[in-house]
Amino acid sequence: MSRPTILFAVPEDFHDRVFDDARRSAFAAVGDVLGRVEEFESPAARGLLARAEVLVTGWGSPLLDAEALDAAPRLSAVLHAAGSVKHHLTDEVWHRGILVSSAAATNAFPVAQFTLAMVLLAGKRVLPIARRYARTRSELDAQAEFPGLGNVDKRVGIVGASRIGRHVIALLRPHGYDVVVHDPFLAEADAEALGVRAVGLDELVATSDVVSIHAPSLPETRHMLDERRIAMLRPGATLINTARGELIDQDALTRRVLRGDLYAILDVTTPWVLEPEHPLYAHENVLLTPHIAGSLGTELRGLADSALAELRRLAAGEPLAHPVRVEELSITA
Amino acid sequence: MSRPTILFAVPEDFHDRVFDDARRSAFAAVGDVLGRVEEFESPAARGLLARAEVLVTGWGSPLLDAEALDAAPRLSAVLHAAGSVKHHLTDEVWHRGILVSSAAATNAFPVAQFTLAMVLLAGKRVLPIARRYARTRSELDAQAEFPGLGNVDKRVGIVGASRIGRHVIALLRPHGYDVVVHDPFLAEADAEALGVRAVGLDELVATSDVVSIHAPSLPETRHMLDERRIAMLRPGATLINTARGELIDQDALTRRVLRGDLYAILDVTTPWVLEPEHPLYAHENVLLTPHIAGSLGTELRGLADSALAELRRLAAGEPLAHPVRVEELSITA
Repeated sequence: MSRPTILFAVPEDFHDRVFDDARRSAFAAVGDVLGRVEEFESPAARGLLARAEVLVTGWGSPLLDAEALDAAPRLSAVLHAAGSVKHHLTDEVWHRGILVSSAAATNAFPVAQFTLAMVLLAGKRVLPIARRYARTRSELDAQAEFPGLGNVDKRVGIVGASRIGRHVIALLRPHGYDVVVHDPFLAEADAEALGVRAVGLDELVATSDVVSIHAPSLPETRHMLDERRIAMLRPGATLINTARGELIDQDALTRRVLRGDLYAILDVTTPWVLEPEHPLYAHENVLLTPHIAGSLGTELRGLADSALAELRRLAAGEPLAHPVRVEELSITA
Repeated sequence: MSRPTILFAVPEDFHDRVFDDARRSAFAAVGDVLGRVEEFESPAARGLLARAEVLVTGWGSPLLDAEALDAAPRLSAVLHAAGSVKHHLTDEVWHRGILVSSAAATNAFPVAQFTLAMVLLAGKRVLPIARRYARTRSELDAQAEFPGLGNVDKRVGIVGASRIGRHVIALLRPHGYDVVVHDPFLAEADAEALGVRAVGLDELVATSDVVSIHAPSLPETRHMLDERRIAMLRPGATLINTARGELIDQDALTRRVLRGDLYAILDVTTPWVLEPEHPLYAHENVLLTPHIAGSLGTELRGLADSALAELRRLAAGEPLAHPVRVEELSITA
């Protein structure tokens, strides 16, 4: 596959945001770009699919089922320029020996950066201090009014050694925290290799100054932070959720926040947008953001770069750097 | 000096916050702690000074002038458990060959962490988005409402290759920014060694997405961001100031902020606390904090650790890791 044929199977909006002119030219320099389709049923799409060796997919790509695959006899790789492949790839893709790669690692990076920033600010109580200062508009003795502030001698608990969780652990490394992690699929030796200590979820919740959630949303993880564990969070702790609202019992969290001894940074909620009268919008100890931690804006170009790098590896006969294996699907996001 | 005599010359408040029990014991394990003084004039203080080989100082320490030095014939080192030594050490200290060390590097770290967090949030427009979301309380298309957001393909301009500026540069490294720096005392080769490009201040201001000030406050640096340079900042740029309010023409900055196309993160202002009716308190694009970026709370213990490490080096006959040279005083904070 020295100069593969490439078909983009993504919506126009995704194509425009992720692949700027420079990146489109870069793809065309490595292979023959057949065009772009949004579905696999029309005769035009079928005509392109018949010639495609590499499919580039993204958010909103059509389902690649047995019927579509039957129409793509030359297909040898799917390069997903986004995170999860669960919504458009069927097991049939792997059964036919087609290579699958994902930009989940790249996609995870902005979430890890958002989390790092929030951990640093949480230790120092920066956002609540700023809000109080904007309200009182007079000299504020932060050390006296926010006891225990500071980023030294602090523990950060990472829930989920997912791609994002591991990125967060790596980004926290220069900052001297005591980092603990909980993940039912993480062996102790793996935790050691990450330079952190694996602990039970109860211990993590009860001893961490900052708790950040990076677990997948699965039936088994629904409300993993339930009322009991939310009650166990230390007074003055900060809870960060950039994963999915369903991982937390939001009503129990809201009650604890209203008690005044818990800080929360929530990039996700249940439902996706809270009703306008929800108390979390206005509370001094809460920062609510509309699901912006993941790749957005210029960060989408990183997804193109990731798929491009995989395409170059394919063309050079090298193994993919970010293969997706079918057996991982049930335990990842 | 295998087991030096040590005198703490710091106010009680500083002593309590920086040196907890564990750290006091650690000092006593390396040398003989004579006690603590707050001034150098009383007979009691003079008695202790006469025996002191190492002086540990901090914020609010008394002036070490020729008279005090005459009373301290055995003094061979001053370990400053804080940043600048300008306020309590006179040139006479160096003239007498006394070694001086400062915890400025440790003290700089929290400022660099605060800056890193703010740079990461600035690229993504996190704080203005959060404020708008708290106000509108309905679905918010961040990419459409905040064009250009994202941390990829962004330039960060560091004004001042001071200790803090260099820490910031190091902490930014894993995040893929194009980092430029301006410092009149930084040679091009030094910038290269830091992995960044040295540019003129005008170019930095006109081309950076985030500008962060880490220059000392000196007569020559007053209003280095004057009205002309503030006008040169890119639409949508973020200005971060954790240094001193005097470095910026604050009235010009306020006018530009009120135009709506500039973001500002200000941990310092002129005066120290703005008058209550100042428009910067309430503007959606501004975060105002009461000078909290530096070492506070648990971070003060890092200053003790730094002085302790220097004491151990002295006792072991090793050179100091963070010596302060008299010729640096005129160009640093």
